[in-house]
Amino acid sequence: MPHIAVDPEKPGIIGLFDFRPETAKPLGELVEVLLRGPNSLSRGERELIGAVVSRSNDCSFCSQAHGAFAAAQLEGGSDLVERTQKDPHNAPLSDKMRALLRIALTTRDSGKSVTAEQIAAARSAGATETEIHDTVLIAAVFSLFTRYVDGLGTEAPDAPEWYAGAAQQLVQVGYPGLAGAPGGR
Amino acid sequence: MPHIAVDPEKPGIIGLFDFRPETAKPLGELVEVLLRGPNSLSRGERELIGAVVSRSNDCSFCSQAHGAFAAAQLEGGSDLVERTQKDPHNAPLSDKMRALLRIALTTRDSGKSVTAEQIAAARSAGATETEIHDTVLIAAVFSLFTRYVDGLGTEAPDAPEWYAGAAQQLVQVGYPGLAGAPGGR
Repeated sequence: MPHIAVDPEKPGIIGLFDFRPETAKPLGELVEVLLRGPNSLSRGERELIGAVVSRSNDCSFCSQAHGAFAAAQLEGGSDLVERTQKDPHNAPLSDKMRALLRIALTTRDSGKSVTAEQIAAARSAGATETEIHDTVLIAAVFSLFTRYVDGLGTEAPDAPEWYAGAAQQLVQVGYPGLAGAPGGR
Repeated sequence: MPHIAVDPEKPGIIGLFDFRPETAKPLGELVEVLLRGPNSLSRGERELIGAVVSRSNDCSFCSQAHGAFAAAQLEGGSDLVERTQKDPHNAPLSDKMRALLRIALTTRDSGKSVTAEQIAAARSAGATETEIHDTVLIAAVFSLFTRYVDGLGTEAPDAPEWYAGAAQQLVQVGYPGLAGAPGGR
């Protein structure tokens, strides 16, 4: 049961966005620009970074939601996402994506643990300055989200269909539309 | 040395905001509403929560910056902030603030570790639903910031005067003005 009085019909972060629209607005805009704005990393690749970090955070809502969002926007679909969430360092991805995932997972653990070698490896594999920046920020943002939804005791739907439905809506309307939709769905 | 090509004149998060204005905008708006917007917790109290979480995160820039921001806006000034950063559970604060700091420090460690008892204790001490929500979100936001500034290897000024100057500016112009100021200072 959530620790505060959120709408029981609105799971995960959607209930929190509904509870506190003043903070929901910039948070929605942040993920919209970071995960869906113009970028040399595709939307699917950026969601995949978030989904892998969330799985490592053991955040049920974030991991399932962003796993579904990645699957809906990557050619490899849910098989690729599941393989990458389970074993990110050996997933069938580009060298650049593997190097970026390594940086993201290190950042998740501790920013201080990111090494110059990890950055150099990403750069050698073709990562740009902005891609490296965004990878660290995506990992940092999901370090926020896991604490936000878990710290307030929100609930995560069990049904994969819920996340698949949310993913279809996300692709159509983006994060601000997703957060503001009736029932958040 | 920072891992990406940020302006060497702009330390900590200020260089990152300058590097990527698209994500700086919603991040600046988020901290403005969360730490300085209308609230039953004072601006100083909210900065103190951020400063305590940042000290526990061992984030040099965040700890010194938000410590200075709290000191500039709390009656007890830097003595109170330093005492609270060193020993938050025994600092001379209200029962409500001590209960909220306990929730914030637990969230910092892991959202899942926040207990119904900690929430009940805060509520018994007079904390509102929104104060509990905001405390968890402040702790979560600083879990983002520490990973963002440390993960990209940014540098923190040594001189306390730098942070005191930034604090004076923050009080006058708020976060968006602080981030956008020439040299970020």
